[in-house]
Amino acid sequence: MSRFALDPRLDADTMPVAELALSALRLARDARFPWLILVPRRAGIAEVIDLADGDRAVLFEEIVTVSRALRDATGCDKLNVAALGNQVRQLHVHVIARFETDAAWPGPVWGSGAPVAYEAAARDRLVARLRESLPTS
Amino acid sequence: MSRFALDPRLDADTMPVAELALSALRLARDARFPWLILVPRRAGIAEVIDLADGDRAVLFEEIVTVSRALRDATGCDKLNVAALGNQVRQLHVHVIARFETDAAWPGPVWGSGAPVAYEAAARDRLVARLRESLPTS
Repeated sequence: MSRFALDPRLDADTMPVAELALSALRLARDARFPWLILVPRRAGIAEVIDLADGDRAVLFEEIVTVSRALRDATGCDKLNVAALGNQVRQLHVHVIARFETDAAWPGPVWGSGAPVAYEAAARDRLVARLRESLPTS
Repeated sequence: MSRFALDPRLDADTMPVAELALSALRLARDARFPWLILVPRRAGIAEVIDLADGDRAVLFEEIVTVSRALRDATGCDKLNVAALGNQVRQLHVHVIARFETDAAWPGPVWGSGAPVAYEAAARDRLVARLRESLPTS
């Protein structure tokens, strides 16, 4: 099996937040939505159901941990959790904090307008709050 | 706690496929995409992380079982699995079979055009194939 390497598009569109037991946790470079992406560090996997059973159990735990941390950090109205992968096949799971006032509400965030760059201080505050709630390796 | 009742919009937009241990399994009334929806029979829950731990474990198992059944039944190119709930708050999880030739590819299915009614025989074939792979109560 080949070695895991983060997909170049995921790498370009996100920044690192933490390394969890299985997944790299990344923040999308889009200030419109607090938007996290978990990328299990396993090569050649596109579907949740193609992970080994043990890895899948860890991924589910990480989704729960990250969902709680994101809701706590943002006070969002709704979480959106999704594994799509139509454009980037490397398995990745979106965990997005949604607000009834956000730019895409009530639609999905994917394909909705153009990303807006973070102001550095706001981004750093969000990342710091998230890291407080996350077990990192 | 109030009693579970399927949200009226979910009821209108889907048809029953099976009753799993926790979730009602429904098929979206849209022939463009083989599109299943799991609805845990729990009242007043909007987020996966707000399910009781035991229920959440069962839901994750049901997502895996349904994902495998849908891929086996359709031979799809990609699965899309998502809990969004921006429009219907009752917790429900989409498991959608995507094809590189489908009407929304590579975008998400939500908000993409108008549903197309199933031809009854095609719908019945799909439901029959799914039921073969699913443990029902």
